[in-house]
Amino acid sequence: MGGVAMSKTIKASIIGITGYTGLETLRLLLAHPNVEIAHLTSRQHENASIGEVFPHLSHLDLTVTNTDHKTVGADSDVVFLGLPHKTAQDVVADLHGSVKVIDLSADYRLDDVETYEKYYTSHNHPELLSEVVYGLPEVVGADAIKNASTVANPGCFALLGQMMLFPFKGMIERADIFAITGSSGSGKSASDGTHHPVRNHNIKSYNINAHRHIPEITRAAGIKEDQLNFVPTSGPFARGIFANAFVKLQADINPLDLAEQAYGEQEFVRLTDNVALANIVGSNYIDLSYARGEDGVIIVQGAIDNLVKGASGAAVQNMNLMFGLDEPTGLDTLAPIYP
Amino acid sequence: MGGVAMSKTIKASIIGITGYTGLETLRLLLAHPNVEIAHLTSRQHENASIGEVFPHLSHLDLTVTNTDHKTVGADSDVVFLGLPHKTAQDVVADLHGSVKVIDLSADYRLDDVETYEKYYTSHNHPELLSEVVYGLPEVVGADAIKNASTVANPGCFALLGQMMLFPFKGMIERADIFAITGSSGSGKSASDGTHHPVRNHNIKSYNINAHRHIPEITRAAGIKEDQLNFVPTSGPFARGIFANAFVKLQADINPLDLAEQAYGEQEFVRLTDNVALANIVGSNYIDLSYARGEDGVIIVQGAIDNLVKGASGAAVQNMNLMFGLDEPTGLDTLAPIYP
Amino acid sequence: MGGVAMSKTIKASIIGITGYTGLETLRLLLAHPNVEIAHLTSRQHENASIGEVFPHLSHLDLTVTNTDHKTVGADSDVVFLGLPHKTAQDVVADLHGSVKVIDLSADYRLDDVETYEKYYTSHNHPELLSEVVYGLPEVVGADAIKNASTVANPGCFALLGQMMLFPFKGMIERADIFAITGSSGSGKSASDGTHHPVRNHNIKSYNINAHRHIPEITRAAGIKEDQLNFVPTSGPFARGIFANAFVKLQADINPLDLAEQAYGEQEFVRLTDNVALANIVGSNYIDLSYARGEDGVIIVQGAIDNLVKGASGAAVQNMNLMFGLDEPTGLDTLAPIYP
Amino acid sequence: MGGVAMSKTIKASIIGITGYTGLETLRLLLAHPNVEIAHLTSRQHENASIGEVFPHLSHLDLTVTNTDHKTVGADSDVVFLGLPHKTAQDVVADLHGSVKVIDLSADYRLDDVETYEKYYTSHNHPELLSEVVYGLPEVVGADAIKNASTVANPGCFALLGQMMLFPFKGMIERADIFAITGSSGSGKSASDGTHHPVRNHNIKSYNINAHRHIPEITRAAGIKEDQLNFVPTSGPFARGIFANAFVKLQADINPLDLAEQAYGEQEFVRLTDNVALANIVGSNYIDLSYARGEDGVIIVQGAIDNLVKGASGAAVQNMNLMFGLDEPTGLDTLAPIYP
Repeated sequence: MGGVAMSKTIKASIIGITGYTGLETLRLLLAHPNVEIAHLTSRQHENASIGEVFPHLSHLDLTVTNTDHKTVGADSDVVFLGLPHKTAQDVVADLHGSVKVIDLSADYRLDDVETYEKYYTSHNHPELLSEVVYGLPEVVGADAIKNASTVANPGCFALLGQMMLFPFKGMIERADIFAITGSSGSGKSASDGTHHPVRNHNIKSYNINAHRHIPEITRAAGIKEDQLNFVPTSGPFARGIFANAFVKLQADINPLDLAEQAYGEQEFVRLTDNVALANIVGSNYIDLSYARGEDGVIIVQGAIDNLVKGASGAAVQNMNLMFGLDEPTGLDTLAPIYP
Repeated sequence: MGGVAMSKTIKASIIGITGYTGLETLRLLLAHPNVEIAHLTSRQHENASIGEVFPHLSHLDLTVTNTDHKTVGADSDVVFLGLPHKTAQDVVADLHGSVKVIDLSADYRLDDVETYEKYYTSHNHPELLSEVVYGLPEVVGADAIKNASTVANPGCFALLGQMMLFPFKGMIERADIFAITGSSGSGKSASDGTHHPVRNHNIKSYNINAHRHIPEITRAAGIKEDQLNFVPTSGPFARGIFANAFVKLQADINPLDLAEQAYGEQEFVRLTDNVALANIVGSNYIDLSYARGEDGVIIVQGAIDNLVKGASGAAVQNMNLMFGLDEPTGLDTLAPIYP
Repeated sequence: MGGVAMSKTIKASIIGITGYTGLETLRLLLAHPNVEIAHLTSRQHENASIGEVFPHLSHLDLTVTNTDHKTVGADSDVVFLGLPHKTAQDVVADLHGSVKVIDLSADYRLDDVETYEKYYTSHNHPELLSEVVYGLPEVVGADAIKNASTVANPGCFALLGQMMLFPFKGMIERADIFAITGSSGSGKSASDGTHHPVRNHNIKSYNINAHRHIPEITRAAGIKEDQLNFVPTSGPFARGIFANAFVKLQADINPLDLAEQAYGEQEFVRLTDNVALANIVGSNYIDLSYARGEDGVIIVQGAIDNLVKGASGAAVQNMNLMFGLDEPTGLDTLAPIYP
Repeated sequence: MGGVAMSKTIKASIIGITGYTGLETLRLLLAHPNVEIAHLTSRQHENASIGEVFPHLSHLDLTVTNTDHKTVGADSDVVFLGLPHKTAQDVVADLHGSVKVIDLSADYRLDDVETYEKYYTSHNHPELLSEVVYGLPEVVGADAIKNASTVANPGCFALLGQMMLFPFKGMIERADIFAITGSSGSGKSASDGTHHPVRNHNIKSYNINAHRHIPEITRAAGIKEDQLNFVPTSGPFARGIFANAFVKLQADINPLDLAEQAYGEQEFVRLTDNVALANIVGSNYIDLSYARGEDGVIIVQGAIDNLVKGASGAAVQNMNLMFGLDEPTGLDTLAPIYP
């Protein structure tokens, strides 16, 4: 709506366009006033019009190619990586420093290699872990990201969980989180867990206290793993994560004051007294509520679109910071799809 | 499947057939080998074939009438009340003692009138509160129900919440429950909260720590209201409730041992290590899991069909006990609808 | 509800219990007063408790084995085959004549081998095609099924399509059918077409005028393939098929009269003026409406639960006839799940 | 993505912001580079921040007022009317000629008052019917809209139905359309038909051959009412309309050639051989397929988002034409939400 479009144009590429995060990044970049698409790549498609691969984008005059990542890097101002974990390790290492990189995989989210290897797999480039910046400006600060060459985009559950707890950093005795995600969080490949006849009306938890996003949450909350119970759950809807946390603090502090202190200036954080999943779908907003419960417990609720704020929206927000644009550029014009 | 049908025939009536609990009671009674329908009544229909009122039952040769409740009582062995709260108060008072009554409303669920009036409204017959038996055999014992003249059927959230906590009765320091219900829990009348365009993909909590089912839960768990955080939540599905509880006990006790002790003999309780909503829809089963979490917290999960075990199935289970039938009669032949 | 259970007990087995039709047959047999389960077999499970394989049935004391089909046949009064097409061919041939067989696959649905091989694959036992009886009593007559040794159960789309048109047999100039099915029609294996993130809100037609159920429809309607347009479509729900047909007859005849003539005595056919999918889910009922449209077109609508009337319910109905039970036994006590 | 934003800024207002079409118009205008919001009005809200009325828009610094429509007109370059039928009649009459008006109601969609009064109600300003331009550029031509002062935006079913048939204008013998719509088509007020417990898995037709959108379809197709069977149907999803038409032409003509001739230059029409609802949700695209069926029948399928191309997107497209902007401005950057 209105406003003066900046003249700057960023050449952006997506490596791994066929996954949901790659695809959602493209959706957001198409709505961004300062971006033009350089390359869209996929190992599965040598050279296909985008409409062949994704009929919902058949109006676009774009091509999906199997261009190697170094060529992509050389032709781009920024490269988004929508690759699986492990695969991204070497690609980041090859590109780091030569082009701005925003890695949507988990490979560089954690600081120390031991934790990474405990939750994921072996790491080929542990020396880079400290050079890649964790891409959550509301937690690490915008300045860190502005100066980054490569950014590691947060996990979806991780982003929501840590933003719920971050205002209490260093004050938490224990946090018990129940979080329920839509089926798009499972990615683009069909599986038993996303088989419609059952998923359509099922709710089931999985990886309780063992989910890979846990170390991102504990780090931001300033707690140890034994101070967190985290119950990831799958729900009968396509987009979004809704989470409820029961938090016991070390002292009696007004939770809303802390939340306002932490997020008062943040464009995409909406503090509310009534979080509802339908209010954020399709947008980069995160809704958060903080209330006092019984027995000194703080009840925190939060909701995000797992593919936007939980992935590609956060990535574009990082891109804006890395290129000196206003942080909300191209994202604040995308209101939630409602209903 | 198989088995010798008992020769006993129970004349059953439903007062308030147009609500979802009345309707679901009818569905279950139709599958019961020892029941014949006497009256189905509704204030909205003077004398209508059931197919006119409910096209999904157009194959039945039954009539919905506006017969007064005393006549219904005189013609029946058992009367199910599917009436709104408050309305049921006087009807129970009129029928109590003259016919077996199973009241699906909230009017006689609580023991003391103060708590009732705090959560609901004024009570015309407080003297009856101690005579009506709370209809949850797994918690109060089957004997109490066998000898009851009138039974008060539990609330849906209340049934699930208390059955999750009951094995820990008297040992709980604090319980924090998040429970998510399908839209049929809101009853048959359309409202903003059940408007499909939004409900279809929404999750939203309501009445946090203020829900009317709380006193049923605290009573069965042996705790005070300030030892419970209860977060009722509406979800994007039609049938069922899924709940997760983080429970802190006063001592370190194996939760599964306690659960097996409490429920080992119960026909409709299925202890599992993986609760999934889709596993119970359409049936009277309640699935429960008990596991140790971090920091001494017990993680309890449970699922029921809100209209079956959470309402009409529990009512039929009570009827079986009141008439000396095997507790599962007519219910254990109804497997979950899957998928 | 009520009624005297017959003393007869039928030993029933299901070969191929892990598919949705096998599983749904079990659900219905569990509610049948004259059936006891002999064998439940699957190639994937050597000897597993049913609760291991299907957690939603963990309350049952039944075992899934890999028993060979001849042993199953020898131990049973009736065998239901929930096998894939082609696999069922030889199993039927081995069992035919020695035990009652109800084949839920497509292998013996068609009369002539040319049509079978055009739509499916090669047939090892074409000589049996004329011995196996097509299991749709409303179309072929109950007597044919009563005397059958082996019955071929209709396809789901085929059952609905032909029952919509059958009253007009021999009078149809052209029929144009649009039919939309739930995701359970795709079976138990996850696939791109049943991936929840998209299926959740998608509608898409497939195999237009090329679907394998077409020859069953044309046969019952007395038309040739070039008199039928059939548009099978997948929809965003789990259970049921809803279909709309525009039918041009050779003469101006009251369609409802014809429908009443064809189905007036049928227990599971409900003629209505308002077909709604939600009215039949979970039950064996088929709702049909017949109305005059513009330009002499008859508008026919129909709805079934694809897994009940469209598969396992029709199979149990056939079993009842084959064993001299009342046709609706064990099925008419299962009212639709509503809501 | 990229491009130079035009410097022109249009002051746009929405009268009737609380309905779904008003709300969706706002969503689209927020993403439009040449629009600034002047007034958002509603009779229900005297002066409320938008976040109070619509929590999903709580990040916006906008106010909902009860400003009278003449003041709104005086302050705006364009006024969108999201009012109910009948209410819009006088408002259009008051504003026509003094400000550009885009009326999303049905009040000025039809040319002659008899047809309007047959399908709707009495009309206070029949003399304006010929002055208001029907706002479907793909059918009436862009030039007509460029010069219009007031535009009547098409109905949602009407838009899809007529765009499916328009390539055959004057050549149609009969068209039989089955169209299934999401629940958002019923508007923002809860009703029995949108009650989630049932709508969640229901399909039901209504107003067969009596729907108010019929005269828009017949007009564009060049047929009489007795040449059309139109079966509007409600489905279990929130957004979108999918339609299937069986069309008999007066001569044997290649349908795809006609479609390419009609729509080859149209930015928002995507001719495809596989229409899928999920491919257009959230966007202004209309997907259409044309294929030959049996017996000379043409099978046409189409899909739109009922709130975008079926309402607010078409309205913004009209606005662009009325203000000399490129027709797709602000709309082609909004790709479908997928998944």
